Amino acid sequence: MKIGIYGYGNLGKGVECAIMQNPDAELVAVFTRREPSSVKILTPTAEVVKADKVLEYKDRIDVLVICGGSATDLPVMTPELAKNFNVIDSFDTHAKIPEHFRNVDAAAKENGNIALISAGWDPGMFSVNRLMASAILPQGKDYTFWGRGVSQGHSDAIRRIDGVLDARQYTVPVEEAMNRVRAGENPELTTREKHTRECFVVAKEGADLGRIENEIKTMPNYFADYDTTVTFITKEELEREHKGIPHGGSVIRTGVTGKDSENKEIIEYKLTLDSNPEFTASVILCYARAIYKMRSRGVIGCKSVFDIAPADMSAVPYDEMLAKML
Amino acid sequence: MKIGIYGYGNLGKGVECAIMQNPDAELVAVFTRREPSSVKILTPTAEVVKADKVLEYKDRIDVLVICGGSATDLPVMTPELAKNFNVIDSFDTHAKIPEHFRNVDAAAKENGNIALISAGWDPGMFSVNRLMASAILPQGKDYTFWGRGVSQGHSDAIRRIDGVLDARQYTVPVEEAMNRVRAGENPELTTREKHTRECFVVAKEGADLGRIENEIKTMPNYFADYDTTVTFITKEELEREHKGIPHGGSVIRTGVTGKDSENKEIIEYKLTLDSNPEFTASVILCYARAIYKMRSRGVIGCKSVFDIAPADMSAVPYDEMLAKML
Repeated sequence: MKIGIYGYGNLGKGVECAIMQNPDAELVAVFTRREPSSVKILTPTAEVVKADKVLEYKDRIDVLVICGGSATDLPVMTPELAKNFNVIDSFDTHAKIPEHFRNVDAAAKENGNIALISAGWDPGMFSVNRLMASAILPQGKDYTFWGRGVSQGHSDAIRRIDGVLDARQYTVPVEEAMNRVRAGENPELTTREKHTRECFVVAKEGADLGRIENEIKTMPNYFADYDTTVTFITKEELEREHKGIPHGGSVIRTGVTGKDSENKEIIEYKLTLDSNPEFTASVILCYARAIYKMRSRGVIGCKSVFDIAPADMSAVPYDEMLAKML
Repeated sequence: MKIGIYGYGNLGKGVECAIMQNPDAELVAVFTRREPSSVKILTPTAEVVKADKVLEYKDRIDVLVICGGSATDLPVMTPELAKNFNVIDSFDTHAKIPEHFRNVDAAAKENGNIALISAGWDPGMFSVNRLMASAILPQGKDYTFWGRGVSQGHSDAIRRIDGVLDARQYTVPVEEAMNRVRAGENPELTTREKHTRECFVVAKEGADLGRIENEIKTMPNYFADYDTTVTFITKEELEREHKGIPHGGSVIRTGVTGKDSENKEIIEYKLTLDSNPEFTASVILCYARAIYKMRSRGVIGCKSVFDIAPADMSAVPYDEMLAKML
C-alpha cells in the first residue's frame, strides 16, 4: 500500500519509521506546510511536497495519514482530505469524537472513500480493550491509569507561565491505587487518588520560584485536583534527563461471573512505551492497512477502531494466522 | 438473541450464567446426552432436552453454543450442527484448527449458516492480542505465560496413574522469567524456564508414593520438560483447598521502534481468573452476539476471533460507543 504522510512532526516521523518496518507499505510523499527543501526525511525514494499540492497525488496514494493537532488541524483537515483520499487520523479530543466522525463520514461517503479517525493507543488500543473487556464482563468496573509518561498538554500549560523557559510534566499512576484495582477490590477512586503529577521546570534567571510553583499547583483542570510536585532544574538537566517521550498505562476491567457473582475476573491491558509518538504511529499504520484492505472490498465511509477486525490489521496471510497465531 | 447450549458441563453452566448477565440474550434450551430429568439448570424459562432432539429446535435458536471436548466431540459435532444452526465452539487443539475450520466452513456455507470456532481466552482473547500486538510491533518477540491455574489435561494425566485417586495440577509461570520479559530484556526462554508444575495428589492407601511421584515427574510431554513438584494430600484437603478452577496468564509482546530501533515498546494483556470455564463462557457469549449480528447482515461461513470487529461483540449501541468508550 502506498502511504502519504500529511504533517511531519513527531507523529509523522514515527509513521515514516513504522513504514520502514513493514514491507507491505511504501512511503510516497511527505506533505508539509514548511518549505519542502528545509525538511529532511529518512526515505530516499519519497518526495517532500508542499501541503497545498496534495491533490496532485490523489491517484498515487492509497492511504493518507494525517498527522495534525486535534485542537484546530484535524477537525478541518480530515473531512477536507477525505473528499479525495482514504484517510486516517489520531483525533483525540474525546468529547468531540461523535461530531468529527459525522463530518468525516459525510465527506468520505460522498466521494467513495474510506476513513478512520482516532487511531493510536488512547483513543485506540485502550478503547478497543475497554470495549472488549466491558462486553466480556458486563457486571464490572473499568479503570484507566496513564503513565508514567510525558503529557504534552500539561508541559505546554506550564510553559505558558510567566518566568518559565521550559518544562516537562510526567503523569504518574498511584501504585497503591493500581494494586487495589488489580487485587479486585473495586475501589471508588477520586482523581487525586489515581494519578500524581511531577513537573520539571526550567525558570528564567531571577524568576520568583515560589510564585511559579504556586501557579502550577493551583492551575484549574490541569493541576489543582492532583498532588503535584514541582522541581526546578537547569536547561542542561532537562535536555539530558528528560529528552525522551515515554508513556503508557493500563486499562483494567474487574468483573464477576457465576450464579451468585461469586468469582472475580480481571482483564488488564498494559503499555510501557519508550516513545509515545512512535508507538502511536505503529498503531496508525496497522489501521491504515486495515482500511486499505476494507476499501479494496468496497467498504466506504468513516470507521473507528471498533469497526476493525484484527485480521485486517495484520499483513500475515489468513491461513498462516489460523495455523500459527490462533 | 435466542441461545441453545449443547452440552452442560462446567462450560455449559458458565454460558448459562453469562446469559443471565446479558439482557439481550435468552436461553431457549439446554441439550444433553444425559437423561434430561436428571439435569437441573438455573433458568426456569428454559427447557432441558435430549441432545438427539436438537433439530426440532432449528427455527427457535439463533446461535447454538457447543460445549463439548476438543479431542473427540467438537471435530464431529461442530460441522454436523453447523448444517442446521449458527454455531460457536471453543475448539482448542491448536494444531488441528485449520482442518476444523475447513470442515465447519464447508458445512456452514453449504447451508447458509455462520459459525465461529475456537472462542475463549486461549485460543481466543490471547490470540487476538498476539495478532494485534505483532501487527503493531513487527520487529518484536512474543511471550505467552499461563497460570497460576489448573490444567485439566495435566490433572487428568496424573489421575490415570495406577494408585492415584484424584489430583489437581497447577501451571505456574516463573516470576523471574516474566520480570525479565517485562523489563524488555527479550530473553530466549526454554520450556523449563517459563513454567513450573505443581501437583497435588490423593493416593490410594498403601500405594507406593515414590513410584507415583517418579511416574509423574518423568511423564513425557506433560511433565518431563518442567520442574515439577508433587505433594500428597488427603481427599478432604483436595476438596477443601483445591475446588476452584482458577487460571489466567499474560501475552507479552516486546518490540522496538524508531529510526535505529532505539526505543522499546511493551504490550501486555493479562488475565487473572477465579473461574476459567465461566470466563471462557463469557467470551463465547460475546462472540455469539457478534456472529448473530453478522448473520443478520448476510455473512455466512466459518469465522475465527480474528474476523470479528470489537463493535460486534458489544451490546452497546454504536453511537454510545463512539461518545463514551472511544
